[in-house]
Amino acid sequence: MRAAVLRDGRMVVRDDVPEPVPLEGQVLVAVKACGICGSDLHFAKHGDQMVRLTREITGMPLQGGLPVDVDDDVYMGHEFSAEVLEAGPRTDAPAPGTVVTSLPVLLSPKGFEPILSSNTVLGGYAERMLLSTPLLLRVPDGVDPRHAALTEPTAVGLHAVNKSAIAPGEAALVIGCGPIGIAIVAALRLKGVEHIAAADFSATRRDLAATMGAHVTLDPADGSPFDTAKPAVIFEAVGVPGIINDVMRRAPLGSRLVVAGVCMQPDTVLPLFGIAKEINVQFVNAYDHNEFAESLRAIADGDIDVSPLITGEVGLDGVDAAFDELAHPDTHCKIMVTP
Amino acid sequence: MRAAVLRDGRMVVRDDVPEPVPLEGQVLVAVKACGICGSDLHFAKHGDQMVRLTREITGMPLQGGLPVDVDDDVYMGHEFSAEVLEAGPRTDAPAPGTVVTSLPVLLSPKGFEPILSSNTVLGGYAERMLLSTPLLLRVPDGVDPRHAALTEPTAVGLHAVNKSAIAPGEAALVIGCGPIGIAIVAALRLKGVEHIAAADFSATRRDLAATMGAHVTLDPADGSPFDTAKPAVIFEAVGVPGIINDVMRRAPLGSRLVVAGVCMQPDTVLPLFGIAKEINVQFVNAYDHNEFAESLRAIADGDIDVSPLITGEVGLDGVDAAFDELAHPDTHCKIMVTP
Repeated sequence: MRAAVLRDGRMVVRDDVPEPVPLEGQVLVAVKACGICGSDLHFAKHGDQMVRLTREITGMPLQGGLPVDVDDDVYMGHEFSAEVLEAGPRTDAPAPGTVVTSLPVLLSPKGFEPILSSNTVLGGYAERMLLSTPLLLRVPDGVDPRHAALTEPTAVGLHAVNKSAIAPGEAALVIGCGPIGIAIVAALRLKGVEHIAAADFSATRRDLAATMGAHVTLDPADGSPFDTAKPAVIFEAVGVPGIINDVMRRAPLGSRLVVAGVCMQPDTVLPLFGIAKEINVQFVNAYDHNEFAESLRAIADGDIDVSPLITGEVGLDGVDAAFDELAHPDTHCKIMVTP
Repeated sequence: MRAAVLRDGRMVVRDDVPEPVPLEGQVLVAVKACGICGSDLHFAKHGDQMVRLTREITGMPLQGGLPVDVDDDVYMGHEFSAEVLEAGPRTDAPAPGTVVTSLPVLLSPKGFEPILSSNTVLGGYAERMLLSTPLLLRVPDGVDPRHAALTEPTAVGLHAVNKSAIAPGEAALVIGCGPIGIAIVAALRLKGVEHIAAADFSATRRDLAATMGAHVTLDPADGSPFDTAKPAVIFEAVGVPGIINDVMRRAPLGSRLVVAGVCMQPDTVLPLFGIAKEINVQFVNAYDHNEFAESLRAIADGDIDVSPLITGEVGLDGVDAAFDELAHPDTHCKIMVTP
């Protein structure tokens, strides 16, 4: 079977991956589409650092997905839709041909195994993979499987918005309009938030933010977004050192900062900024099953149209080049892999 | 009139301070007691730095109290009780002899002037000072004026607890048992929190925490408090660089950190700790009028007994030595100035 795997920092296509065999409670599926996530790009470049950091977070692996041996081939791809092929033994599963998506977790005799970055658990950059029947969500007929695959990043945005507890009348500022920032904009619009500002240095990304629901877009090159926006809730979706402190310095009194960007490096802040303004900082990660299901429903019903996010499509052979292309934010948001 | 003022880093007694004259809406009061606050010690040592930092927080002075010219004499003392002497013109005020306390703010033609650290507004390290009638709270008969003076630090603790939205069944860990940590312990107990752990390197302070309501006390020299406590809410009342990151590293999944310690230096954190565990960080500052009034009521009714906090008492001449003594956490919690 074919799969694109991470080997020595590049995405290499193997055609000798052993055919996965579903156990009880599992199904074998054929991947229809899988989005490339920024965290995959990051893992490809800094996998060893991510493993080390995760080990430092005693007893709490990031998204449960690490550690993994980066010197061995790594399977990735956690934003997928797929077609059911065959159920495991004694397993009640949807009929073959049913299109599904799932939380990126495999229930196995080992317990919960994340479908994220693993030496053993296949992800969506493969022809076929295993999923778990209790986690399957049926994709309604007529929904583009590429759109259904974007349930996962949509759920990330929805979770960040839910954790913020933002009310419709409160103003939001989204800093960074990459895929996560865009998903946050879409979720804010879904929740009826009436004042959504979105900031990014890239004109392409600002346009996409407007398409997805931002009422105002701002170019930080023209001055701090806080010169214009007076948000009650700020969503930080950049994830580089310095952003949190800059937000705390400029944010209004009593505002809430949701940290959705994943900064892997140490970051320096001046706590006095937070103290003087009684800022609340909510770090967020992932989503729950309900948010995942609500995201699929919103996509299927057209409440969130994810089609503008898709800026490219490749087969398994194109994954390596797609990882390179995604380094240029001005040209791409989501590249879908359709094995 | 006599007052202890900050001059060149020391507390100097002046006997030539002009007698304050109440304007309309103000009362002249005789200070009965004033607690020495850690922030006064900090200002005495690092006033210039505090002024600089405050100016950096554009449009939002810390507690409204700065900037101030540190090269001129500075009045301080914001934890006070006092006896009404004389009302300003056309002013409806409590009868002379009434004992009161107040939010440390003076309403004047200049607007809201903090009673905190000022070249012009007198504080509680003086024989007499001015207060504003709309902010006066009458101290019930029979309440020790030294206890009433501790309404202010008690309100700081109550505010931190209120901002945490802790439920009685949730476990709390208070890190640092200086006056603020102790006030938090007292407020947690007041709110019926059933599991209060308090950590401090000082045995004296741990004993005081137990007296004030901590169910468990922990010595960080014996290992991380998180080895024992599994708190839902952590109150950080230390305020030195590194504490926030250490809490985020060790805190349980989904816990809330209330930052009540005032760290004046830049501080470095690893955001990934917060992200992986979805930690919420609430910076807090000061209190509101209702919390101030509730604190006085709790002290007056005996729901919070602040008497164990008082470890010393000095006149104006003893303020300078008291500032030095308070540098040793093992011997003192609150020293009261009774001018």
